[in-house]
Amino acid sequence: VPELRKDPVDGTWVIVSTERCARPLAIRTKIPIQETEPCPFCPGNETETPKEVFALRPGGSERDEPGWQIRVFPNKYPALRLDGAVEERGDELFVRKDGVGVHEVIVETTVHDLHLADMDSGQLVEILKVYAHRIRALSCDPRIRCVLVFRNHGFLAGATKLHPHSQVVGLPRVPRRIERELEGAKAYHEVHKRCVFCDILHREIEEGTRILLENEGFVVLAPYASRIPYELAIYPRNHAARFEDEGEEGIRFLGEALKKSLGAVRNALGDPSFHYIIHTAPVSSGSRREERSAQDAAFHWHIEILPRMTSLAGFEWGSGMYINIVSPEEATALLRSKG
Amino acid sequence: VPELRKDPVDGTWVIVSTERCARPLAIRTKIPIQETEPCPFCPGNETETPKEVFALRPGGSERDEPGWQIRVFPNKYPALRLDGAVEERGDELFVRKDGVGVHEVIVETTVHDLHLADMDSGQLVEILKVYAHRIRALSCDPRIRCVLVFRNHGFLAGATKLHPHSQVVGLPRVPRRIERELEGAKAYHEVHKRCVFCDILHREIEEGTRILLENEGFVVLAPYASRIPYELAIYPRNHAARFEDEGEEGIRFLGEALKKSLGAVRNALGDPSFHYIIHTAPVSSGSRREERSAQDAAFHWHIEILPRMTSLAGFEWGSGMYINIVSPEEATALLRSKG
Repeated sequence: VPELRKDPVDGTWVIVSTERCARPLAIRTKIPIQETEPCPFCPGNETETPKEVFALRPGGSERDEPGWQIRVFPNKYPALRLDGAVEERGDELFVRKDGVGVHEVIVETTVHDLHLADMDSGQLVEILKVYAHRIRALSCDPRIRCVLVFRNHGFLAGATKLHPHSQVVGLPRVPRRIERELEGAKAYHEVHKRCVFCDILHREIEEGTRILLENEGFVVLAPYASRIPYELAIYPRNHAARFEDEGEEGIRFLGEALKKSLGAVRNALGDPSFHYIIHTAPVSSGSRREERSAQDAAFHWHIEILPRMTSLAGFEWGSGMYINIVSPEEATALLRSKG
Repeated sequence: VPELRKDPVDGTWVIVSTERCARPLAIRTKIPIQETEPCPFCPGNETETPKEVFALRPGGSERDEPGWQIRVFPNKYPALRLDGAVEERGDELFVRKDGVGVHEVIVETTVHDLHLADMDSGQLVEILKVYAHRIRALSCDPRIRCVLVFRNHGFLAGATKLHPHSQVVGLPRVPRRIERELEGAKAYHEVHKRCVFCDILHREIEEGTRILLENEGFVVLAPYASRIPYELAIYPRNHAARFEDEGEEGIRFLGEALKKSLGAVRNALGDPSFHYIIHTAPVSSGSRREERSAQDAAFHWHIEILPRMTSLAGFEWGSGMYINIVSPEEATALLRSKG
């Protein structure tokens, strides 16, 4: 029987309807990314990208030259620019503002076609440290209110390049999904004086049916109200509001959890397209220290992993509600057995 | 310069960043739907589908036999069923309820591969009347709070069948997008004593840069805060809360507007995948007549048309914010010139 489930944090309702899984074509075939030559992310082609803003160069090589291990530069086709005014303009009906913000690309490795699950743990740790570095760097600009790090893998996830890379966006406002999570978390915290994510983790570990894996620092689970098949979330075991504040040890445990999770997704599902996105607490201005402390008590950073086996259809677009054809319990069982 | 625009009704922020349009692969190539034989929606294969609940049979033929012009039956893989209790269960963290609802398929024609833009106007009018009929029929069930009619065309829109068809979903609750539109419209109405959609139409007609076409009954425009390239919306020119209350004349004008709009999308963009979705006011129970009248004064029904040229990427999933690489003004100009 189909079931409606409510996300305990942001209140989104999801229809879990596993009968639909028998439907032809419900699980998609792979569509390759059409590559343009030469790859601008490969070593030797540094002049094909905007000038780098940060790079890991263990041998001490020159900027915008080969010799880097990880390289960061502005997106050539930026969605936002650090230029213009932050004020809103317009009238009651048509409000607009300049697209003030930052949009960067992080090239994660020199190897053109390496799957993240095949990278060595040391490289993965360095990538995660670069994420934290860029979040901290972008947070320094007073115009930036929220920094999102995300990664698209494969054609159906919207990736246009095969070469492993992530993106960082610094936004002039807190986007709706983070805002809703924050609101839900704050409302729960006001009533219970506890973090809702901590309570969820406690319950999930107790129930066990949606836990993919755990290590000393992190828990990976299929969320109770998963929006799409095989959705996963990685949570630090202990309360922490900000990804970018994780220490050396935390990052190491996270790298292990991420590598194993993405490996399970690839092995069980045949290398599907996927996104992952880091949800860290928004930047708070120093002048509102109380607000920051209330936010940080309520919010618990996490990574969403979203394999893209199915397209969003008109129903999802039109309603803002999701139909998920694989229950998170089934998803966990499959990923565990084949991971 | 990139620009942020706010949807005047539901408050969603969109990044309009036309520089990204130069990006390779930003506009997708066509991926064909893999057909399974025989097509269960073709005449003669009626036994391959669940039993029909409604059909237009101008010659008076037998139920579940050939001779129909338009045929409606329950989805073979339903997301919801009229079965179970409407009450919520669970505890504070994990809330769920039975997936009580209706999920139907409307086969729009006997012709296996006819594009909607090529159907004759008379057939299109009959399809729209069947939509209205199903909305009214499903609204009679006290467990149904909202009825959505939508259509997926093409692989990237999530369609799994080529044969022209639409879907109807009757939901036990008002989904989030409709809820947000209603809230925005009601808030505006309380302040201004006017419908926000009527005010938008007035402004749009005055400005003209986002109007694709108009006829006596309807206006088709590219919304100010379009979320995706070439998004369109069809509004009745005069205030009306419910699609299903349109009369004969309204439906005729709507058919004309829909046919021309979809023709423009196909001709200008090379037959892309698309969704369209009817947003009509939710069902209100008779016992809350005041609520219904406040809702119907504020809400203005409309159809969203969403061509799918691009994939939703990690940014959109993670943030709930959209990056649109084609401004609605550019979209209007292109669709007008090639439509």
